[in-house]
Amino acid sequence: MTITPPALSVFESLESEVRSYCRGWPAVFDRAQGARMTDEDGHSYLDFFAGAGSLNYGHNNPVLKRALIDYIERDGVTHGLDMATTAKRAFLETFENVILRPRDLPYKVMFPGPTGTNAVESALKLARKVKGRESVVSFTNAFHGMSLGSLAVTGNAFKRAGAGIPLVHGTPMPFDNYFDGKVPDFLWFERLLEDQGSGLNKPAAVIVETVQGEGGINVARAEWLRALQELCHRQDMLLIVDDIQMGCGRTGGFFSFEEAGIVPDIVTLSKSISGYGLPMSLCLFKGELDIWEPGEHNGTFRGNNPAFVTAAAALDAYWADGQMEKQTLARGEQVEQTLLAICAEDPTAHFRGRGLVWGLEFTDPARASAVCARAFELGMLLETSGPQSEVVKLLPPLTITPEELDEGLRTLARSVRETA
Amino acid sequence: MTITPPALSVFESLESEVRSYCRGWPAVFDRAQGARMTDEDGHSYLDFFAGAGSLNYGHNNPVLKRALIDYIERDGVTHGLDMATTAKRAFLETFENVILRPRDLPYKVMFPGPTGTNAVESALKLARKVKGRESVVSFTNAFHGMSLGSLAVTGNAFKRAGAGIPLVHGTPMPFDNYFDGKVPDFLWFERLLEDQGSGLNKPAAVIVETVQGEGGINVARAEWLRALQELCHRQDMLLIVDDIQMGCGRTGGFFSFEEAGIVPDIVTLSKSISGYGLPMSLCLFKGELDIWEPGEHNGTFRGNNPAFVTAAAALDAYWADGQMEKQTLARGEQVEQTLLAICAEDPTAHFRGRGLVWGLEFTDPARASAVCARAFELGMLLETSGPQSEVVKLLPPLTITPEELDEGLRTLARSVRETA
Amino acid sequence: MTITPPALSVFESLESEVRSYCRGWPAVFDRAQGARMTDEDGHSYLDFFAGAGSLNYGHNNPVLKRALIDYIERDGVTHGLDMATTAKRAFLETFENVILRPRDLPYKVMFPGPTGTNAVESALKLARKVKGRESVVSFTNAFHGMSLGSLAVTGNAFKRAGAGIPLVHGTPMPFDNYFDGKVPDFLWFERLLEDQGSGLNKPAAVIVETVQGEGGINVARAEWLRALQELCHRQDMLLIVDDIQMGCGRTGGFFSFEEAGIVPDIVTLSKSISGYGLPMSLCLFKGELDIWEPGEHNGTFRGNNPAFVTAAAALDAYWADGQMEKQTLARGEQVEQTLLAICAEDPTAHFRGRGLVWGLEFTDPARASAVCARAFELGMLLETSGPQSEVVKLLPPLTITPEELDEGLRTLARSVRETA
Amino acid sequence: MTITPPALSVFESLESEVRSYCRGWPAVFDRAQGARMTDEDGHSYLDFFAGAGSLNYGHNNPVLKRALIDYIERDGVTHGLDMATTAKRAFLETFENVILRPRDLPYKVMFPGPTGTNAVESALKLARKVKGRESVVSFTNAFHGMSLGSLAVTGNAFKRAGAGIPLVHGTPMPFDNYFDGKVPDFLWFERLLEDQGSGLNKPAAVIVETVQGEGGINVARAEWLRALQELCHRQDMLLIVDDIQMGCGRTGGFFSFEEAGIVPDIVTLSKSISGYGLPMSLCLFKGELDIWEPGEHNGTFRGNNPAFVTAAAALDAYWADGQMEKQTLARGEQVEQTLLAICAEDPTAHFRGRGLVWGLEFTDPARASAVCARAFELGMLLETSGPQSEVVKLLPPLTITPEELDEGLRTLARSVRETA
Repeated sequence: MTITPPALSVFESLESEVRSYCRGWPAVFDRAQGARMTDEDGHSYLDFFAGAGSLNYGHNNPVLKRALIDYIERDGVTHGLDMATTAKRAFLETFENVILRPRDLPYKVMFPGPTGTNAVESALKLARKVKGRESVVSFTNAFHGMSLGSLAVTGNAFKRAGAGIPLVHGTPMPFDNYFDGKVPDFLWFERLLEDQGSGLNKPAAVIVETVQGEGGINVARAEWLRALQELCHRQDMLLIVDDIQMGCGRTGGFFSFEEAGIVPDIVTLSKSISGYGLPMSLCLFKGELDIWEPGEHNGTFRGNNPAFVTAAAALDAYWADGQMEKQTLARGEQVEQTLLAICAEDPTAHFRGRGLVWGLEFTDPARASAVCARAFELGMLLETSGPQSEVVKLLPPLTITPEELDEGLRTLARSVRETA
Repeated sequence: MTITPPALSVFESLESEVRSYCRGWPAVFDRAQGARMTDEDGHSYLDFFAGAGSLNYGHNNPVLKRALIDYIERDGVTHGLDMATTAKRAFLETFENVILRPRDLPYKVMFPGPTGTNAVESALKLARKVKGRESVVSFTNAFHGMSLGSLAVTGNAFKRAGAGIPLVHGTPMPFDNYFDGKVPDFLWFERLLEDQGSGLNKPAAVIVETVQGEGGINVARAEWLRALQELCHRQDMLLIVDDIQMGCGRTGGFFSFEEAGIVPDIVTLSKSISGYGLPMSLCLFKGELDIWEPGEHNGTFRGNNPAFVTAAAALDAYWADGQMEKQTLARGEQVEQTLLAICAEDPTAHFRGRGLVWGLEFTDPARASAVCARAFELGMLLETSGPQSEVVKLLPPLTITPEELDEGLRTLARSVRETA
Repeated sequence: MTITPPALSVFESLESEVRSYCRGWPAVFDRAQGARMTDEDGHSYLDFFAGAGSLNYGHNNPVLKRALIDYIERDGVTHGLDMATTAKRAFLETFENVILRPRDLPYKVMFPGPTGTNAVESALKLARKVKGRESVVSFTNAFHGMSLGSLAVTGNAFKRAGAGIPLVHGTPMPFDNYFDGKVPDFLWFERLLEDQGSGLNKPAAVIVETVQGEGGINVARAEWLRALQELCHRQDMLLIVDDIQMGCGRTGGFFSFEEAGIVPDIVTLSKSISGYGLPMSLCLFKGELDIWEPGEHNGTFRGNNPAFVTAAAALDAYWADGQMEKQTLARGEQVEQTLLAICAEDPTAHFRGRGLVWGLEFTDPARASAVCARAFELGMLLETSGPQSEVVKLLPPLTITPEELDEGLRTLARSVRETA
Repeated sequence: MTITPPALSVFESLESEVRSYCRGWPAVFDRAQGARMTDEDGHSYLDFFAGAGSLNYGHNNPVLKRALIDYIERDGVTHGLDMATTAKRAFLETFENVILRPRDLPYKVMFPGPTGTNAVESALKLARKVKGRESVVSFTNAFHGMSLGSLAVTGNAFKRAGAGIPLVHGTPMPFDNYFDGKVPDFLWFERLLEDQGSGLNKPAAVIVETVQGEGGINVARAEWLRALQELCHRQDMLLIVDDIQMGCGRTGGFFSFEEAGIVPDIVTLSKSISGYGLPMSLCLFKGELDIWEPGEHNGTFRGNNPAFVTAAAALDAYWADGQMEKQTLARGEQVEQTLLAICAEDPTAHFRGRGLVWGLEFTDPARASAVCARAFELGMLLETSGPQSEVVKLLPPLTITPEELDEGLRTLARSVRETA
């Protein structure tokens, strides 16, 4: 495939230097369907990126699209703040019936501003309010967002430097396997908590991703998560699972923490919750934590009703039974087989993952970028993650067909070979 | 009109106590068109609230709706992060041609996460990065958002308390007319800046709304804004205008600061920028301030392409000539006449405003809520603002017809009378 | 008088660049008695500086010296932390009998580390603990010390910059007469407190000097102090008077706030409390505020027993009756007469003061330094203060004789004339 | 020995509840000489506490006492701020000749306020200023002082809570042997520094005690200190050794870090530096770090000249040759033998130490307090340390005679036995 350099002029002249994805993927995208995006020159790209986890059901999923257009056509409320609307009620009822009740989850639902970072901000506020303490523990290589509250519990030094103020009230602890199993889990964290002379400000809460997406596809083991929940209970800290990237079925079950059998005190959801890539986010918390005053946390777009419509449609279509979970796990095995083969061939490569999120790490960090660049030339969207961008991140839509998945994995293998 | 108490059960049982608007307006809304919303029982409400300023062109504006449905129908990219897309290009070109160039504004455009608070967070980050200082000056009764960076420059004590940590790095200064003209403008602020012993941490920037919406419809005079710009230049501070609620034509011109003839260093836009109530926000800044590194501030939904489509359509439809501005000023005069009459009749009422944003303040704060409650019974949506909710806030769609406006003003007058 | 440049070698080669007084007064001092210091070459200097207020009773006051030597000779406890000692008991009893009881002051006595800044740190800690709030209000041009807690409520920008971290949790308010009487007292402060939308974090306490020494000899009027106390009571804030420089009789009465008839909640004392220039400090507070846990604030030198001995001797010798106060006020009048004459002659000079603390401000800041430099050549120690070092500060020992005072004032007048 | 309950009335009625030592040692002390204190009833106590390390040369050491009285008698300057004085010059020259030059230490000398916490505050300020970063790493169970800067790097949760504000800009790391040797030294610290995604704010400096006194007599191994210095060099962080309690010969050499062969970038000294228990402190730093501006950090009592006199006399008397060091090490062996015997007898006791600082830890924390209480009844002063006060701390004067030391150790052994 030959790619003509696209006309990027207005992006270059008018848009801020802060733009990033458009630099690695020099194309002007126009349309998208399922696992494919098409640029204005008609080139098609197989999407193993899925809106950084926002498009678990693929681009412009036809089931959701129908519901969305119907809603717009009939002049359903678009912008509703937190007024009661029929679309919101439908979503709430579906969420309760399809997601919460079958899993026996005791959560109240809050609609913060419709972005992940806003969900995290509301979770942190609530945890601090409930416990009356400022400090929150996060983990090495965590990513929780760009607004100041979320950024303070995010690991990346480059992003943190952007704050322009010292980021405080957060303390990092080692994520699972940070020392390759050579140090007992939570040894440091627990000792700090128990030692009255440790100097750790007692945390209100711990915030964790079950699989760190931006941090390099670091997968926490189920027993580690259980031990963390245990520690939180013992030490009177709230457990917040940030399921923004890994929730909505990415790892198999609807929530990524289901497999571990834990019940976090607070859960944040965003990205794929609307199903269609529309901005939406949720903050879930146990009923007894719902000590918010009316309007204490608000936001203009917290009632993005078109997103409620697609969200409800997605839950109905994909989560009424266990099919989605099974399919994701099956697809995951398909990915794992390919990664096994790639790593067998290339000893500088290592992989890890769960469900349909996988990372292929290279000893030489530059290699990961080279693989993604080559994949783009071959018509495939792949991004890197990890503190040194040393990991190729595989995040295809959950609805990808086995054939598309196979095609993508072959392109990946070829890109790895051709950059060796 | 008789209103049957709506079935709110799932809202009450499942949604968090944090919900607010649904408490004052106990109806379940279903459809909306122009200046009217309709609940599921078929009751119609005249909307003098307009999504807190997000619906300047009315609900489900037909021109934008057509463009939106067309885009969705043809599988245009929905979720694009900051990839280049044809929809984004169209928006950028339109924004440049219709808004920036005719006003000779030297701005680069940044797409933060699609909410107002995210635009403010990015503005504050950039200002701190450019100046290498932490402190930012805001004004009494300012409202800039709920995430920690924005909240630290927001005045409301109740909202601030929600942070759960001490909010620092911000210092409030008196907004225009805070002392009823009895103290020279900027006397305190300037003295603090000039006195090396004042104890004020030198600010990187000043953030201001030209009209404070949430703060009680406090209108800054053009000369005050010019003097503020002057002070910022003299003291090497960046001037940030938060035009999230007052921009997009609310006060007449597209930007609310045009009338004063100032050119802020940084401008935030959100709410009505998409035109359709879809989440979108912009951070504009002078080219020389564009020192962002690629990806230094990011966000999953910063490329909400359907919003780009409706935004471009709105600019094309309403801002290609000066009609919109003229009409808004004319409608504003219509409002002013009514408010004059109301206040003539009721000496406990005072009003202020500009363009199509007006506030009617009552000596007894409870009265404002009573007026809004009565208006709701009479089929009209009106909310209060101000630190004690003492101001009835009039924020109809800019596209409201003279007849609808008249109807609403009559309902307002009646509500005032009937709550006296 | 001719002064040979002293051999400063070890000071220059070994002592840090942070040293300051030795730069303005290039002499190596050896002995001191009363209001005079003598350098190693035998030159004598009349001291109108008095250890920055630490030597109200003059250098090596013979009454205190006798008590001190006796104590050392008999091996009295020197270093006692907060063990009970006979020297401490004697001081406490004297302080109670001579100072607290006659003034009907309801204070408990705390011995923090023996420096002013430590007393301020303990005062701020206690206020925050009592009120459960972080914020403290200070005043423009305040000086409270160099450790981080005290520095955050100090005005000087140069000193603040030394912190190396952003100084937060403090907000400056205008000191008395900051706007030359053109703005009503506390207009801004009170409005911020009453306005729930002001953005001011509710303060735990207000910390104030009745006369700002380092800030430029700014004298608060008694009615201003009373109004401040009133405001504190009304708004549930503690009033802390930092009497470190102005207490111990500097303004006439033992406490500088006596004249205003107020009773602060917390008072800090240091500098002249030991009487002999020995490190010692006190934090006084109303009994009901004494919620300290044992050892919650401590410090190695909080029991500097030789200082207790001289402190008790000073109280006995000078405060058993009202003589000291009368004499200080009389001496103050003598100073005032001279300053009146100086300012009558030189229209660029202005003065202010109270008791035996006076400031002579020059329109041209450099002039104040020139006056002090000339005075030094003429055998007199005088330092500047104020944010631009624009004020010549007169702070002679309270025990200075009328003749010495007259001599010093003549030297001052001459220095002013000769630098015109 | 029978002890009559002393008359504590004024302490109880007037002194703040914050007092602590006087509670454990209910006596009113009057005189002191060498290793003995005497209360007002004539009871004598053998002092194994030595002013918490401020009395290394014993109480009222006759050599220093002579110099002190001579100085006072001849009206030497008492209070000098940072004026040049003959006493200060003598101290500086002695310090250079006796301490710095023989050890080839490249330090400039700063005189902060005369307390340990002030020395630490100045060290932290300087480190932050030099590196332009806010964060400082401290260690578990560190103790550095009570003012806000020092308290933020202190471990004790009870003391930290006294701050009344969240203590930030500090991060604790595990002190040597925190995990009983089961985790490689600096594994966590180094990994956080190297991982760009760790979330650790890059530290300006590391502050460490070679032996943690308040923290429980935790002794860092020489190789651990060397590795720490190595890590600091590699990672561009300054190494601050807080030698306030362990310096001045407590561990043998004048500086406690000499044994490890390291040269810290910054060193704080206080407590025994004056030799006589008089308030004094020093901050030492490498010449190239001396970027202070004149007066950037100051303090009223930074020129406590009587302390300079006794300090110079102590250096002359005790450090002109290696005798003191040898004697301390010999005395230390005497202590170690006894502790070996005690622990052989009581399996719940463990000991550690170096030079003349030793800790005897009990499995049951209450036991340590019981031992100290019994020792007091037997006429001996001993205090506890450690986060749970679980360690009996042995800190006799370095000048204690072998007989006194033996007497004390016998009393200790008896107290241990009698509390079993």
